[in-house]
Amino acid sequence: MLAELRTMLKTPIIVINYKSYPTSIGRKGIDIAKHAEAISKEYGITIIIAPPATMISRIASVVEMPVFSQHVDPIEPGGHTGYITVDAIKDAGGSGSIVNHSEHKLILSDIYKVVKLLRQAGLYSLVCADNPDVAKAAASLGPDIVAVEPPELIGTGIPVSRAKPEVVRNSVEKIRSINRDVIILTGAGISTGDDVKAAIKLGTQGVLVASAIMKAKDPRTVIEDMAKKALKALDEA
Amino acid sequence: MLAELRTMLKTPIIVINYKSYPTSIGRKGIDIAKHAEAISKEYGITIIIAPPATMISRIASVVEMPVFSQHVDPIEPGGHTGYITVDAIKDAGGSGSIVNHSEHKLILSDIYKVVKLLRQAGLYSLVCADNPDVAKAAASLGPDIVAVEPPELIGTGIPVSRAKPEVVRNSVEKIRSINRDVIILTGAGISTGDDVKAAIKLGTQGVLVASAIMKAKDPRTVIEDMAKKALKALDEA
Amino acid sequence: MLAELRTMLKTPIIVINYKSYPTSIGRKGIDIAKHAEAISKEYGITIIIAPPATMISRIASVVEMPVFSQHVDPIEPGGHTGYITVDAIKDAGGSGSIVNHSEHKLILSDIYKVVKLLRQAGLYSLVCADNPDVAKAAASLGPDIVAVEPPELIGTGIPVSRAKPEVVRNSVEKIRSINRDVIILTGAGISTGDDVKAAIKLGTQGVLVASAIMKAKDPRTVIEDMAKKALKALDEA
Amino acid sequence: MLAELRTMLKTPIIVINYKSYPTSIGRKGIDIAKHAEAISKEYGITIIIAPPATMISRIASVVEMPVFSQHVDPIEPGGHTGYITVDAIKDAGGSGSIVNHSEHKLILSDIYKVVKLLRQAGLYSLVCADNPDVAKAAASLGPDIVAVEPPELIGTGIPVSRAKPEVVRNSVEKIRSINRDVIILTGAGISTGDDVKAAIKLGTQGVLVASAIMKAKDPRTVIEDMAKKALKALDEA
Repeated sequence: MLAELRTMLKTPIIVINYKSYPTSIGRKGIDIAKHAEAISKEYGITIIIAPPATMISRIASVVEMPVFSQHVDPIEPGGHTGYITVDAIKDAGGSGSIVNHSEHKLILSDIYKVVKLLRQAGLYSLVCADNPDVAKAAASLGPDIVAVEPPELIGTGIPVSRAKPEVVRNSVEKIRSINRDVIILTGAGISTGDDVKAAIKLGTQGVLVASAIMKAKDPRTVIEDMAKKALKALDEA
Repeated sequence: MLAELRTMLKTPIIVINYKSYPTSIGRKGIDIAKHAEAISKEYGITIIIAPPATMISRIASVVEMPVFSQHVDPIEPGGHTGYITVDAIKDAGGSGSIVNHSEHKLILSDIYKVVKLLRQAGLYSLVCADNPDVAKAAASLGPDIVAVEPPELIGTGIPVSRAKPEVVRNSVEKIRSINRDVIILTGAGISTGDDVKAAIKLGTQGVLVASAIMKAKDPRTVIEDMAKKALKALDEA
Repeated sequence: MLAELRTMLKTPIIVINYKSYPTSIGRKGIDIAKHAEAISKEYGITIIIAPPATMISRIASVVEMPVFSQHVDPIEPGGHTGYITVDAIKDAGGSGSIVNHSEHKLILSDIYKVVKLLRQAGLYSLVCADNPDVAKAAASLGPDIVAVEPPELIGTGIPVSRAKPEVVRNSVEKIRSINRDVIILTGAGISTGDDVKAAIKLGTQGVLVASAIMKAKDPRTVIEDMAKKALKALDEA
Repeated sequence: MLAELRTMLKTPIIVINYKSYPTSIGRKGIDIAKHAEAISKEYGITIIIAPPATMISRIASVVEMPVFSQHVDPIEPGGHTGYITVDAIKDAGGSGSIVNHSEHKLILSDIYKVVKLLRQAGLYSLVCADNPDVAKAAASLGPDIVAVEPPELIGTGIPVSRAKPEVVRNSVEKIRSINRDVIILTGAGISTGDDVKAAIKLGTQGVLVASAIMKAKDPRTVIEDMAKKALKALDEA
C-alpha cells in the first residue's frame, strides 16, 4: 500500500487545510473536496485535502484523492480516550496526516513517534515548521513532506512566497542539506495562483493553503487558479 | 432539539467509552453500536456510545441512540487546525461529548468553556472527575452528567462500586450538595451487571464502561447483563 | 506554622505579582519587595509579593512578609525534572503560591492536587479564575484565596473594578454561595488606589496587581496609594 | 561572557541533575554542590549541577562551578506568570539550562526558541533526547550539549552504557553526521564510575546522572568514583 500511495504523491502538490472553518463540515466540506478532486483530475496535479477528523470517512468515501487528518496523536491502539490515532485515520479512509501545525504543535519526541507510526501504517506524514531551522530539525526525522509556515502570516492573505522569500529559500537550503528526498511545501498567506507560482519558483514543490479556499465565495475558481499556476511554474522551471 | 435530546436521557444510563481499542474502529466498532442499540431498545434503557471522532458519523448514521465524542476542544469555528469542535461533532450526528476524561484532562476554564459551547449547540456534556472533590467542582459548572472515576482502577477489572464504595457515596453527597439536577455516573473497573447494580445502589444513575465491553469476546452478552442489572437495581430501590 | 501564617493573612490584601517583568529580578525585584514591606508595616496592611521562583529565597531572606510563588506544579518530591514543588517553595522561604493564573492555567484535578499539597505543607493557596463560574468551581476546592481576573483586561490599565463591576459582584455572590471563608480578590487592570477602593467596595477583600507596580517609575508611591485607599474603603464600609 | 563560559566547559563532563529529590533542597542540596565543587577542583574535571530553580541563587553564590536550571521556558521578559526565564536563570547566577528532559518535554519550536535565547544570553543549552533520531534532530538546532537518555532506564540503576550500548553508539554516529561540535552526553541508570567509563568509551564526552548521587548515602564517594573513572576512560582512549 505504501508504494501505491507514494506513486500518487507526484509534485507539485497543493494541500488544502480545512481547519475548523464553518465550510469545513457538512455539505460545504464535501463540495470543496469534490471541486478539488475534479480539478486534480482535469489538470493532473496532486491535491491533498485535510478535513476535520469527523469528516475524513464522509469525504474519503466520495472522492478519489488523498485525504489527510489535520492532526494525529502519538497513541497506539488501547485504553486511551479522545485521541486521533493513526489506525483510526487509516480505517476512516485517510492516507496521511498533518503533524505539528503551528496551531497544534507537538513535543519533539511525539513528532518522531507519529512520523514513525504513520510510516508503519503506510500513511503519509506532513510535518509543519515555523522557520527554516525548525524545518531542518523536522526534516531530519524523515517525514514524507515538510511544510514551512511563518505563523505570523497565517490567515493574513500576505503570502509567504512574496513577503518572506528568503524564509522559503533558506528553508529549502537547510532542509536539502540533510534530506534530499523530502517534499518541501510552504504556506501562510497563500491567496492566489501567483503566490503558488512564486512558492514553487523559490524551490518548493507546492503549498499549504487554508483560508484562501475555505473562506472563498467560489472555492473552485481559487483552486483552479492555483493548480494552473503551479503547473505553469513547473513548465517555466 | 435540546428538549428532544433531554427526553432521551432517561436514567439509568450506561455509557460505553470505545477509547482507542482495536475494536473501536471499522466493522467491530459498528457492530458494538448495533448490539448496544438493540439492547437499549429491547430493555428501554439509555445506552450512550462514545466512539473515536472518526467513527461518529459512520455510527450515528446507522443507529438510533446517543453518540458522544470522547473529547471536545474549547474551540469555536475558525482558523484552528486539528481540533474536535462542538460544531463538527454535531454535524457528524453526535449528540454530546465526554469532557475531561482522566486520560484526556482539561484546564479548568476549558471545561467551563466546552460545557457552555455544548449546551449552546443543544448537545450533552459528560464531565469526568478523579475524585469526589473534583466531581463537585465539575458539577458546579452545570454539565448534564458528571462521572466519577478513580483513575487507579480504570482498566483493572476491579470495580469502583465494590472496591471503593465510599468514593462513590462521597461523590454523590458532595455533588448533590451543590447540584440537584446533574446525572451522576461512576466508572473504573466496571466489569459485570452486578458492578452496575452496585453502582446504582450507591446513589448513581449509571455507569461509564470501556474495556469490559471493548475487550469482550461477546460484547452483546456483557451489555445485556449490565442493562438487566441496571434495571433490577432500579426496581429494588 | 499554618496557624501562625493564617494570623498574618488579615484583610485587606494587596498581592503584587512580579510576573517576568525586567523589574522582577535582581536589585529592582528586591527593592520593590522592600518598599512593599515598609508600606505594609507602616499601614498595617497585608501585602503579598510573588516574585519569580529563582527570586523567592533572595527576597524571603531580606523581608518580613508573605512571599508567594507565581506557580506550583502538582509534583511530590522524587524523580521529576524542572518542576516547582511545594517543598522547594517552602524551603526557599515562600509561604504560598498563586495557582492557575490565566497566563499559566492548570488542569482541574491538578488545581485540586496543589491546593491540597500546599495546605498539607502549611502554605497558602491563591487560585485564579477567569470568570465568576470558574471562580465558584475554584472556591469549591477550598483554597485560602480566590482571585477573579477577566483575562481581557490584564495589563491594559482598564480596571476590572470599574470596567466590569458586575463580574466582580457576580463572582462574590457565586463564590459566597458555596464558600463563606475563602478570601476573595479581584484583579486585571488595577492601576490606582481608587481602583483598589472600588474593588473592595464591590465585596472583595483586596486585589491582585502586576504591571501598575512592576512597570511604574516610582513603585513605592503606587503601592502606598493602593494601601491607603484599601484601608479607606474598609473604613467606609 | 560566552567565551569565558565556553572555556569552562572542557570535557569530560558530569552533569548532576538534582531533580526534585528530597536532597535537592536546603542544606543537603548545598552540601552536594560543595562536594561536587571540591571533586571538580581536585580532579580538574567539569561537573555541572542542576538544582531546582529556587536553589540556583543559593548554590551559585557559594560554589564556583556551572549551575544549570533543570528547565527553562520559551518566554521573554514581560507579562508572563510563573515561568522560568533565561533572564531569571542568569540573574540568579545560573550559567545554562537543561532543555527537554524526558520528564519535562518541550514542543519542537520551543526547543529552538530556548536554545536561541540561552545563546543570546551567553548561557549554555543542554538538550535531552529519548533516542538517536530525536538526538539528531535536537543536535540540528545547534545546542552546546545533547544528552541521550532512554527514558525506560531512568532511575532504574541499569546503566544505558551497559544495557543499551548500541543506543549510545548510534546516537553518537547520528549526531556527528550533522553536528561536529556539540558535546554528547548520555544518561539513564548511570550508577557507578564504571558506567561513566563505559559511556565515554562509546564515544560520548560524559554523563547525566541523578538518583545515583541524589539518593546516595555518601554522595561524595559516588561523585569521586565517577570523576576518577571518567578521567581514566579519557587516558585509555
